[in-house]
Amino acid sequence: MITPGFRFTPTHHDGRARAATLETPRGRIETPIFMPVGTAGTVKGLTVDELTAPPLDAHIILGNTYHLFLRPGLEVVRALGGLHRMMAWQRPILTDSGGFQIFSMKEISKLDDDGCDFRSHLDGSRHRLTPERSIEIQATLGSDIAMVLDHCPPGDAAPADIDVAMARTTAWARRCLHAPRAPGQALFAIVQGGTSISRRRSHLADLGALTGPETSSQFDGFALGGLSVGEPIPQMYEVLDAVAAELPAERPRYLMGVGTPQDLVVGIGRGIDMFDCVMPTRNARNGQLFTSQGRVVIANAAHRLDPGPIDPNCACETCQRYSRAYLRHLFQAKEILYSRLATLHNLTYYLGVVRRARAAIISGTWDRFERDFLASPESEAHRGQRS
Amino acid sequence: MITPGFRFTPTHHDGRARAATLETPRGRIETPIFMPVGTAGTVKGLTVDELTAPPLDAHIILGNTYHLFLRPGLEVVRALGGLHRMMAWQRPILTDSGGFQIFSMKEISKLDDDGCDFRSHLDGSRHRLTPERSIEIQATLGSDIAMVLDHCPPGDAAPADIDVAMARTTAWARRCLHAPRAPGQALFAIVQGGTSISRRRSHLADLGALTGPETSSQFDGFALGGLSVGEPIPQMYEVLDAVAAELPAERPRYLMGVGTPQDLVVGIGRGIDMFDCVMPTRNARNGQLFTSQGRVVIANAAHRLDPGPIDPNCACETCQRYSRAYLRHLFQAKEILYSRLATLHNLTYYLGVVRRARAAIISGTWDRFERDFLASPESEAHRGQRS
Repeated sequence: MITPGFRFTPTHHDGRARAATLETPRGRIETPIFMPVGTAGTVKGLTVDELTAPPLDAHIILGNTYHLFLRPGLEVVRALGGLHRMMAWQRPILTDSGGFQIFSMKEISKLDDDGCDFRSHLDGSRHRLTPERSIEIQATLGSDIAMVLDHCPPGDAAPADIDVAMARTTAWARRCLHAPRAPGQALFAIVQGGTSISRRRSHLADLGALTGPETSSQFDGFALGGLSVGEPIPQMYEVLDAVAAELPAERPRYLMGVGTPQDLVVGIGRGIDMFDCVMPTRNARNGQLFTSQGRVVIANAAHRLDPGPIDPNCACETCQRYSRAYLRHLFQAKEILYSRLATLHNLTYYLGVVRRARAAIISGTWDRFERDFLASPESEAHRGQRS
Repeated sequence: MITPGFRFTPTHHDGRARAATLETPRGRIETPIFMPVGTAGTVKGLTVDELTAPPLDAHIILGNTYHLFLRPGLEVVRALGGLHRMMAWQRPILTDSGGFQIFSMKEISKLDDDGCDFRSHLDGSRHRLTPERSIEIQATLGSDIAMVLDHCPPGDAAPADIDVAMARTTAWARRCLHAPRAPGQALFAIVQGGTSISRRRSHLADLGALTGPETSSQFDGFALGGLSVGEPIPQMYEVLDAVAAELPAERPRYLMGVGTPQDLVVGIGRGIDMFDCVMPTRNARNGQLFTSQGRVVIANAAHRLDPGPIDPNCACETCQRYSRAYLRHLFQAKEILYSRLATLHNLTYYLGVVRRARAAIISGTWDRFERDFLASPESEAHRGQRS
């Protein structure tokens, strides 16, 4: 990697799957890794102690620039010494650029080649986001890994629109590379191109050729954006199959906003190192629990008298101490404790998947792991189900 | 006390205030004690580990019979091995009789001398509560201390209505004393009588004279009910001043549903041993925090950039790790984590008050503690403010 303090070291390969260490100024991340989403300065429902304690043991979390910019706002984050100190999280944070949330609210945002005017969904106040402004905000947040501002078209976008998005994303990526970042803050580029493999390759080539103010300043990592945005899942898998392993091998590869446990395993098998998704946290709150035996819908009457745990193979506190019947009761009664316990479980499950994948890669048993996982109920149960 | 497995031992007296140990089959309670309210099988927002860990260290919690009877219902509680096992709480639980909640919903309950017909506020289903049924439900819940079914009139009830409530409460208390309880379950009587000291004394005499199937079976403790139900606070204090120390000295004295930090200190000074109230938990969720320097309304703009803790004198995790500005942000963003951290703090504060009171009694400095506390902002700020 380029930015001082970061070092990415692939240590094991098994097919295209790989295990690596990503050292950062705030600690070491073992990949493949899943990043819990901490939208508004908190992974909803959990304390930082719960996030770091085994077996969950999240190595890195994600923060949403758009949400944090609006609330609590940069003045507050600055007064509290940055996002890490504000939320008492000492491990790495990756921030998105803010673009994805803003562009998805079409009725209150107006995109142009230079950036985007938008209104706050909270109070209607007017703001402008540009590549430089996104990097400036992320510098104030003080994340460890910043993302370039990209233009992410919907999954059913016309080819011409995808071309515009790619060109903009390239131009904006260059501007981000030239914008001043916080000390010790890495920057990842985002590859667009929809479900067209040739577009993906072409965009990756464009991004890979970019340099910053010094020719040595390049991107620290590469992300695949614009996937799992409404396109059929088999098409996403085709893109992953063709492109993931073509992202620079000496840099982390990040599949943005993805996905189901199956998506994680498919992605890792194609060479992806990093993932994030709201699915484990949001689904937890909505009553959907991930388990080694498939999906559990906690409201189901079948669990009413069930004294067993959510997942007998799970070591999280929820599964060690509480029954399905109790969790169902807490869910029905809309008790806060339900959301906590369910989130703790789902994130433990997700981190468990990437940890099992990593162990399989290291032990040279990836093929069997991937085959068994994709044939098992824990994969099948969520096929096609998106957050 | 009467029930095997229980032993109440006053160890220190300072004026009318006293420190004692209440040994139960599920562990020892040091009094004066405050009991966090776990309405629906959970102290809202907290795990049992958080409740038992110092500095909070709750020795006993309260469960609401009415709520648990309706949801999850006795079939579920039974299937999970009782309330303790259901919620993974291993320390003592006191359950109320269910009457207070039911009678307070006048439009869906109909009271008579034998008991009360009522409809569920959840699904409109019809039920009947009698003294025997209340004890039967509490036996199924498996609480360590059950309460008699009492008739609690409102704070502005007419004298004739209070007389009816007292007569009913006495008759029901006798029936409760004769009803079969769970093994190792104690039973407390409830003294009514409104704000009339002579009525309170007369009712206490009636209850104290009751015996169960054997002449040796009497009540294990005595509670003052029907206070903090709308009457002026000075009148409540007059009742406490006259009656609290007349409750049998060799049994625990419990002031039900009370109150502010000031109420706790006033009650302890008059000889009360046990308290419960939703105030610390409910106010936490509503943005009101108790501190050694008085009330903090977390939404106030004054806290927007404040990097300091809620209470610099508090050892709870919330105060050790998080700033007022961050908590204000979480409150504004309606984040679950806010309710957790605020509840943890408020309960730590409440348990701290009774612990400080106990230490003052033991060290023979009660008078000074009481005087200083009642003159301090932590008392003043909540004067007259009820949950």
